[in-house]
Amino acid sequence: MADDVMERLSALGIALPEPKPPLGAYLPVVEAGSMLFVSMQGPFVAGQPKLIGLVGGELTVEEGRLAARLAIMNALAQMHHYLGGFERVRQIVRVEGYIACTDDFERHPHVLDGASELLAAVFGDRAGHARSLCGVRNLPGRLPVAVAVTAELMAR
Amino acid sequence: MADDVMERLSALGIALPEPKPPLGAYLPVVEAGSMLFVSMQGPFVAGQPKLIGLVGGELTVEEGRLAARLAIMNALAQMHHYLGGFERVRQIVRVEGYIACTDDFERHPHVLDGASELLAAVFGDRAGHARSLCGVRNLPGRLPVAVAVTAELMAR
Amino acid sequence: MADDVMERLSALGIALPEPKPPLGAYLPVVEAGSMLFVSMQGPFVAGQPKLIGLVGGELTVEEGRLAARLAIMNALAQMHHYLGGFERVRQIVRVEGYIACTDDFERHPHVLDGASELLAAVFGDRAGHARSLCGVRNLPGRLPVAVAVTAELMAR
Repeated sequence: MADDVMERLSALGIALPEPKPPLGAYLPVVEAGSMLFVSMQGPFVAGQPKLIGLVGGELTVEEGRLAARLAIMNALAQMHHYLGGFERVRQIVRVEGYIACTDDFERHPHVLDGASELLAAVFGDRAGHARSLCGVRNLPGRLPVAVAVTAELMAR
Repeated sequence: MADDVMERLSALGIALPEPKPPLGAYLPVVEAGSMLFVSMQGPFVAGQPKLIGLVGGELTVEEGRLAARLAIMNALAQMHHYLGGFERVRQIVRVEGYIACTDDFERHPHVLDGASELLAAVFGDRAGHARSLCGVRNLPGRLPVAVAVTAELMAR
Repeated sequence: MADDVMERLSALGIALPEPKPPLGAYLPVVEAGSMLFVSMQGPFVAGQPKLIGLVGGELTVEEGRLAARLAIMNALAQMHHYLGGFERVRQIVRVEGYIACTDDFERHPHVLDGASELLAAVFGDRAGHARSLCGVRNLPGRLPVAVAVTAELMAR
């Protein structure tokens, strides 16, 4: 079976980043039963954070959207590295978004749509996902956005 | 089988709100295996936020409790809309609470009990739920409280 | 089968704390399918918080690490109390960390490694775990760190 997710990424001109090693004593991806849990990922490009600072402060809402898009690309890179492709992904089950933002920021859903819209574009009717998000005080190394992804796998 | 959850809601005089459309490119509810994941819900009534602002600031702790109760009612509304009732719910597995509060606020568990106590009242011994919560900087549109719910379903 | 996790805890001179009763209308542990969900736990010793305040403020990063270690010990105590031991734990699936910290704090992963490194030391190749974390405004009762744990169980 062709990997339609990889085909759509390619058609959009998106190359997944190198999967980033964990920042501590944990695993980037854990498979349990039919579920795949991806550790929180940030907007890294070539191993470096592409954007830094608070959304609504140093960063505009559009830069926040870009950060969310880059963060989900890093989550996809981890899934691809672990699974060897996306054929086994039945659906994206859950996305949890963390947005480091200023006190008066209100547009969190618009920011996290930078991630959700990419999922919709490449997974189609498997993009699914329930979503949670919140505006946090900060994230490691002053990252503006981070996402954790849970996916359901096909039976082997 | 009668839907005892609907009966208890009715006995308490609680009408579930209309399920609110997602705020972005995600689904309100995702079913995966035997689990149901409900996207984060806020204290909406008739599509509008009933309470706005920080708990411990603009809002009292009792208003925070009410917000938590309304948020879980919105989560139940999403489950009801998706499942067509609550008969298939084996147990509530997890509630994650996000409380937008002032720096010196300490009574998060009391606030989130506004949600947990409603679950106990209507689900009885199926109310279960492990719980997490934190005091966040803010939530979309200045919501004071939001909850994400995970439930386990009976086999079909 | 000997409980190698208990043996390793013992060899490290670690006695698990008494499992703390819930702070509200929820359960400390919920089992659903093959998964075990442990409610958020903090750095309690003998029922009292061992550390209080913001990491990077009242508390140093090393005190934050200790708080993370104590919090995960409380999570293990809940698992042990529910399961009667750790033989049924196939792997630790997920750790979600909440760190109450100052605005300029950046070293969240180092803090949460206080929890992850203990898991690695006692669960060995079953320590697994995908990880999420964020810097929050605050936690109940001014706790500095809290963790929620998801584990996979062996079939009975």
